[in-house]
Amino acid sequence: MQYYIGVDLGGTHLRAIRIDEQGKIYAHHKVRSEAKSGPDILIAQIATLIHEVMGDTPRQEIVGAGIGVPGPVDPTTGIVYQAVALSGWFDIPLQARLQDRTKLPIRVGNDANVAAVGEWRFGAGRGCQHFVYVTVSTGIGGGVVSEGRLLLGRKGMAAEVGHVIVDPNGPLCSCGDHGCWESFASGTSFTRAANAALATESTSLLHEMAQNGVVTAKDVITAAEAHDRLALRLVREEGEWLGVGMRNLLHLYSPERIAVGGGLSNALPLFMPFIEQVIHKRAMIAYRDVPVVAAALGDNAGVIGAAALLVG
Amino acid sequence: MQYYIGVDLGGTHLRAIRIDEQGKIYAHHKVRSEAKSGPDILIAQIATLIHEVMGDTPRQEIVGAGIGVPGPVDPTTGIVYQAVALSGWFDIPLQARLQDRTKLPIRVGNDANVAAVGEWRFGAGRGCQHFVYVTVSTGIGGGVVSEGRLLLGRKGMAAEVGHVIVDPNGPLCSCGDHGCWESFASGTSFTRAANAALATESTSLLHEMAQNGVVTAKDVITAAEAHDRLALRLVREEGEWLGVGMRNLLHLYSPERIAVGGGLSNALPLFMPFIEQVIHKRAMIAYRDVPVVAAALGDNAGVIGAAALLVG
Repeated sequence: MQYYIGVDLGGTHLRAIRIDEQGKIYAHHKVRSEAKSGPDILIAQIATLIHEVMGDTPRQEIVGAGIGVPGPVDPTTGIVYQAVALSGWFDIPLQARLQDRTKLPIRVGNDANVAAVGEWRFGAGRGCQHFVYVTVSTGIGGGVVSEGRLLLGRKGMAAEVGHVIVDPNGPLCSCGDHGCWESFASGTSFTRAANAALATESTSLLHEMAQNGVVTAKDVITAAEAHDRLALRLVREEGEWLGVGMRNLLHLYSPERIAVGGGLSNALPLFMPFIEQVIHKRAMIAYRDVPVVAAALGDNAGVIGAAALLVG
Repeated sequence: MQYYIGVDLGGTHLRAIRIDEQGKIYAHHKVRSEAKSGPDILIAQIATLIHEVMGDTPRQEIVGAGIGVPGPVDPTTGIVYQAVALSGWFDIPLQARLQDRTKLPIRVGNDANVAAVGEWRFGAGRGCQHFVYVTVSTGIGGGVVSEGRLLLGRKGMAAEVGHVIVDPNGPLCSCGDHGCWESFASGTSFTRAANAALATESTSLLHEMAQNGVVTAKDVITAAEAHDRLALRLVREEGEWLGVGMRNLLHLYSPERIAVGGGLSNALPLFMPFIEQVIHKRAMIAYRDVPVVAAALGDNAGVIGAAALLVG
């Protein structure tokens, strides 16, 4: 047998799995991440976790380990430029240091790119030559596969799909700019729009649901499912913004399929009619038949994709 | 010697060259294109032109011929889906038909993609692994090279860089949508903005330059060079829109360099301060040092790039 190890390095949790080349999971561990303790301790923690999911598998059956990192990474050198969720992570040669410790081949990738690889190999993008994965939660990230290869660009920084200006005078974005797609269509923006609307609409279920006057994205989804008028309007607006961004991605990367993951994608069926409406109305005809689908691997996309960096 | 033939199939002219693998031009022909006569006659015309630039070169020294087509093309099958500038061009198997006629290996590509290949191999993108070419004239087109390969996507339709929505409520675009980058930043938009501004600004050189009350892009450039206030404002606005679109391309493709060609790029030095300002202010820090440069091959980018489709 040949096994592949994947690690998802997060600010809260550290997860690792061991899979075979079909994506079948043989081991899965999750611990709290020593995110505040600096790179030395966190790298030691990763190495320990890798050994745990190896179990008593013979060394020669382990092809290697891939690590998904929350920040920009050079996939060629394996250097992590920066990871704001992890204290002290600037220019850390993660690949070299983990190779030293584990004696395994190590690959490193940006977490959203790595999740795209996971969905492409074993999830919603399986069988595609050209594939776009978008994750919509606090922010918007993603990854692009073209001709069966991850689109990396200089310093591995291609496919920052959330940071496309879709209105130069739009809201402030997490990147410091204004009017990125993320600033209109992320889960954060959806919740912000809902709370702003509460002040102006007096007759909505959302008022009853609010805790200390504040509603969550989940509240809006629940209210929309109960046909609340305000919640339905918020869902429509969110869906339309998602559609505008995806219509752009169609023209930029020409994928065979777009898969949507992240927290907000749990309610994708609610948003889908509006996404499809925008694509059908605004994309050039030749792109309109490209399906937008839900991602298939859920929270496992990242950790499976990290392992998949070593596959094939 | 090994030679490569390139053909640029345009609505007005048909051009062909023969180059070596360094891009040196050995023959160059240009004729009026039989654009209205249907595919049969035009394909015969292309074959004749290919034979003309072959001259008496021994057949075994010709590697093949590449054709740049003004419309969407499947580069794998060599089928031209559509070319609106050419009468009757729908689903034409151009590669197969030219191979039959010329007995040469034939490659087919979209004209903007092909020009990107030309600039990448022999022009402003030489030496880059990741490169974006943008052409700004009537519309905005372009091509992307990533890891030394042309980014094609499904049906070869990736990199429609002009058709990114940068304001969903913006002006009508040539593609039928509203608010694409092209609708704000093409040469057509620049001229439209100038003529609209004429009506509201009474003290501009442009009034004297207008022919029948209408100014051209060239007039605005000339007036800006003479420090005309209105023309300078129009140049600044155009430069800022160019900057917004290029800032987006940096985040989407992470090139090492962006080269700008097309009619408007003749005045690139005038626009450059504003392009650079926008990139410096709006791009994430890690992208800000990517140079934006003028394309190097001028009108030859397309025909040289077509030949370069055959270069290993």
